[in-house]
Amino acid sequence: MKTVSEAKSHGGVQGVYAHVSSACHCDMTFAVFVPPQAAHRPCPVVWYLSGLTCTHANVMEKGEYRRKAAELGLVVVCPDTSPRGESIPDEKDNWQFGSGAGFYVDATQPPFSTHYRMYSYIIKELPELVGKTFPVDLKRQGIFGHSMGGHGALTIALKNPGRFRSCSAFAPIVAPSSAGWSKPAFEKYLGDDQAAWRAYDACALVEDGHRFHDFLVDQGTADGFLEEGLRPWLFREACEKAGIALTLNMREGYDHSYFFISTFMEEHLAWHAERLNAGH
Amino acid sequence: MKTVSEAKSHGGVQGVYAHVSSACHCDMTFAVFVPPQAAHRPCPVVWYLSGLTCTHANVMEKGEYRRKAAELGLVVVCPDTSPRGESIPDEKDNWQFGSGAGFYVDATQPPFSTHYRMYSYIIKELPELVGKTFPVDLKRQGIFGHSMGGHGALTIALKNPGRFRSCSAFAPIVAPSSAGWSKPAFEKYLGDDQAAWRAYDACALVEDGHRFHDFLVDQGTADGFLEEGLRPWLFREACEKAGIALTLNMREGYDHSYFFISTFMEEHLAWHAERLNAGH
Repeated sequence: MKTVSEAKSHGGVQGVYAHVSSACHCDMTFAVFVPPQAAHRPCPVVWYLSGLTCTHANVMEKGEYRRKAAELGLVVVCPDTSPRGESIPDEKDNWQFGSGAGFYVDATQPPFSTHYRMYSYIIKELPELVGKTFPVDLKRQGIFGHSMGGHGALTIALKNPGRFRSCSAFAPIVAPSSAGWSKPAFEKYLGDDQAAWRAYDACALVEDGHRFHDFLVDQGTADGFLEEGLRPWLFREACEKAGIALTLNMREGYDHSYFFISTFMEEHLAWHAERLNAGH
Repeated sequence: MKTVSEAKSHGGVQGVYAHVSSACHCDMTFAVFVPPQAAHRPCPVVWYLSGLTCTHANVMEKGEYRRKAAELGLVVVCPDTSPRGESIPDEKDNWQFGSGAGFYVDATQPPFSTHYRMYSYIIKELPELVGKTFPVDLKRQGIFGHSMGGHGALTIALKNPGRFRSCSAFAPIVAPSSAGWSKPAFEKYLGDDQAAWRAYDACALVEDGHRFHDFLVDQGTADGFLEEGLRPWLFREACEKAGIALTLNMREGYDHSYFFISTFMEEHLAWHAERLNAGH
């Protein structure tokens, strides 16, 4: 692992790091904020998964998480959203597939299956690297994200309820199997058999018996992707049927941007902190 | 004036606007955050002047000012740092001159004197436009900025002490006439006669009798430009001699970036709010 940059911020350190990923077979970059409390003890860690077109940098620059994370003593890790590089199969003019659009799945279809293994990267490789490199308490992990990253957070928590104590999302894609902007990517990454898609679809996972203790979701009512791609009411229905606690806040007048995310960032961090510090 | 974008954020509205500037003879873009309180009454306004290479967008995205501005009821205006356009004289490969480097002066030397009139733009044209377009109380104005924009804020406040009730700066260039990274720009904008430069040099303005009631300056000790370009001790000496109150905070380990600015942004907004609400 090499250090790309480090800067003091809000009493902690905001760093950017790069490493050779064995899961994705390419160089990967990620951001880590280490709060001041980490000088004295391992801190709980929250994973922030970003949306389509983003790298690790978007939320690091625009997410406004450091003030509250420093107050609460949370490490915040912000991974990239896909493998990247000249040798990686991609569709240059398609922002909904390939670079910046890994959808947090392990692709099974060639030529994508060699590199597009973001599920394994997020759930296995990166936690191992972070765990041995930064002062984190891996017994206390939370996960959240935005849009495609909200989808990533919900599905990863549902598939690994013993790993994460908390999960939240900003404007998540809750049913990617049937959303116009994610269905073509699922076909290319996972093949034609839609049964295989259910392992990466939050609504389908709940229908299929996966459980998590409670979710927080914020969604802007002025979000241009609400009807076509996001449809949080589908997740509300699935959670209601399954008896899963879901706090769904419909935020009047907010759109899909970081101006929305940053507004509710501190509430989400407080949600995670409450659950991550339980027992301590 | 035309609206480029508007998004709800922290209960207020973050907008970006463009207009044809008569001062700079080109299209100019600026950002305005209007807090929720402005729905009920005109709000005090703080002007944030950005540093070299920046546009209105950098601090809008990375400055983390909206949460506190919304709490305090402050309008925040973020202008661009120079005229821009294909017809504007520029030195493409020089980040310390031309586009992104207007230095908040009115250039007197051709070919720059037609467009590089950022002093008039900031002190006259933009306030008139903002005053008639947004719910601001122009009797309550503050000004602050970063680096080149800190220089802008200090000099503009010193030259217009009746206009501004508050002034602060992050890592300002306090003596641009003698700093390696600003002296060449002053020569090109203002000519060889260094007497003319004193009107745009905070230390020289204080020496020449200009006064302001009090300043707040934050400066990181790990700032790579500290010795060569910033040298806040020169301003401290000038203020001490003149009996001007200066709060100069040397911040251990902080650099010149927005990770530094955003850390102390809320303290600066509180400084302005205290002075802008006096009497109300």
